[in-house]
Amino acid sequence: MNQTSLRERLLLSTLPEEERESGRRLLSALALIEDKLRLVEADLERGMRSTVPTISLIGDYLVDGGGKRIRPALLLLAARLFGYSGERDVRYGAMLEMIHTATLVHDDIIDGADTRRGRATANRRWGNELTVLFGDFLYMKAMEIALDEGDLAVLKCLSDVTLAMTEGEILGAERRGSVDLSLAEYLEVVRRKTALLFAAACRIPAYFVPGAEPWGDRLWEFGLSLGTAFQLQDDLLDYTASEEELGKPVLSDLREGKLTLPLILSLPAATRAERRLVEKVMTDGGFDSVPAASILDLVDRRGGMTRARALLEEWAGRARDAAEGLPAHPARDGLLLAASYAASRRK
Amino acid sequence: MNQTSLRERLLLSTLPEEERESGRRLLSALALIEDKLRLVEADLERGMRSTVPTISLIGDYLVDGGGKRIRPALLLLAARLFGYSGERDVRYGAMLEMIHTATLVHDDIIDGADTRRGRATANRRWGNELTVLFGDFLYMKAMEIALDEGDLAVLKCLSDVTLAMTEGEILGAERRGSVDLSLAEYLEVVRRKTALLFAAACRIPAYFVPGAEPWGDRLWEFGLSLGTAFQLQDDLLDYTASEEELGKPVLSDLREGKLTLPLILSLPAATRAERRLVEKVMTDGGFDSVPAASILDLVDRRGGMTRARALLEEWAGRARDAAEGLPAHPARDGLLLAASYAASRRK
Repeated sequence: MNQTSLRERLLLSTLPEEERESGRRLLSALALIEDKLRLVEADLERGMRSTVPTISLIGDYLVDGGGKRIRPALLLLAARLFGYSGERDVRYGAMLEMIHTATLVHDDIIDGADTRRGRATANRRWGNELTVLFGDFLYMKAMEIALDEGDLAVLKCLSDVTLAMTEGEILGAERRGSVDLSLAEYLEVVRRKTALLFAAACRIPAYFVPGAEPWGDRLWEFGLSLGTAFQLQDDLLDYTASEEELGKPVLSDLREGKLTLPLILSLPAATRAERRLVEKVMTDGGFDSVPAASILDLVDRRGGMTRARALLEEWAGRARDAAEGLPAHPARDGLLLAASYAASRRK
Repeated sequence: MNQTSLRERLLLSTLPEEERESGRRLLSALALIEDKLRLVEADLERGMRSTVPTISLIGDYLVDGGGKRIRPALLLLAARLFGYSGERDVRYGAMLEMIHTATLVHDDIIDGADTRRGRATANRRWGNELTVLFGDFLYMKAMEIALDEGDLAVLKCLSDVTLAMTEGEILGAERRGSVDLSLAEYLEVVRRKTALLFAAACRIPAYFVPGAEPWGDRLWEFGLSLGTAFQLQDDLLDYTASEEELGKPVLSDLREGKLTLPLILSLPAATRAERRLVEKVMTDGGFDSVPAASILDLVDRRGGMTRARALLEEWAGRARDAAEGLPAHPARDGLLLAASYAASRRK
């Protein structure tokens, strides 16, 4: 992959016009880790191969499908911030992307999803059987990479985070189809499902870069806020972005029975009739009897989107505050801009 | 659970009359680890709980469902053989049973299985969604327990074994529905799917019991042979045991497109018409057009069962040879008897 396409994939195409300038500044921060991101990509390709042919086939397909590689990028930036020049950051970066990919692969099976990033999902192409096992393989492989590095503190962090992530997925699944999901419950699922792995990505370098340990808590705090903002924007995009931008249908969360932020903030002010519309979509699993536009209107009318954006900005602000407390360095600028990016990206 | 029911569940009820005597001797060997097996059970119950209600529900259901706990028992016996009196064997024993349970839970989803050990499977009761995630949770939780013990050599062993197990499952899935599965391919799947975790169970104490390390290779060899014999007998039981004994329908492997030992050893001598019968069952996914009795007759006629039993005895013999090379001790007698049990059990 050449640099332009990597850069473009990473950022510019995903920003609205008014954000392009900060996008360009983020690019120059990313230039700091560009070579390493390429090494992560090579590690990922290697890691997803096996002597078992089907594993390599699915692995290649998923690596080719791309992704923002935001977790490895955060880990690399945090390591760079403290002057790291070894290779552990690359290994750990690839490992985090493998954990992330494993969760996506199992999520797509659970959701019965047909498309991701505009392409057929692995479960669609290879069936649930091989795909469940491929996800298991990725978790194991990630653990093997972390073990080879031999740092028990990092292993403990990863083990705690992946365990909490899985519990979070189960929490979310338990509450699926319920219109009574509270804001607190929603935020707890967001924390577990997304924010913790972002936090681990930012914090891990503090375990192995000499002198970085005192910054561990701040890096964790930054990653947790950034990951929350990132997931909130993800949920908002399901209401605002086009199918073309997302590579999946609009309001697909609701269709799958998942209540997310804009509706959670709209429902307390909604009438009983409006509430029933939402319930109907979740029961139907689609927009056959209630059009998507009625739900979007409802959210608009009840101020759900405005309030959701405010909450998103609050978390992005917390991430920026945490980053500002880190040592001044071009890599820190990258982390700061990542917070803006998380809240403004279009896909 | 009282001692009798534990003993009975573990052994006597699963042996034919002529094996009861060696069964009773195995029981006295098991008496050595009886208290510890109870601690494993308590650890398992604790380990499968979580603040997330559904996890505890599924966990309790699975622990109640029982199982032979053969992997923990092997680990405890091997630790006892070298005079171990600490508590790491209990932790690791529970952890192995969790890994084993995770593979069963994912297997049942993959096979679409409705019953296991005579009860509804977790996927049948809670659906694939929660059950995939519960399996993931168990893998993570097992890794957490192993991490808490802090022994990198054990972690590396577990990581290698679970990775190879998952690859083995994928290998098996790739070849599913094929009548051309060779004996070598079949044995490779058996090694990965079952034998390696038995080998790990027997070998792990050599990592942490002082003075046991020189016996590590022999313990591994014993476990690998024992696990192979165990899986071969499992596959034979699908041809010979009654539905009542197994808690699942007879010939269910073939129904699911899995060719196992008795048929693999029958097919080279089979006529084209007989071969087509086998293909038909695999294509149909059942015995609607070809009755199960025709397949059993075919295997009988072509000597598949006799040859399968001979191979099973060969592996059980290897396990006994390896055990005989271990230091003399009542716990070693337990391992020796486990080899006879593996080859003669009825469920």
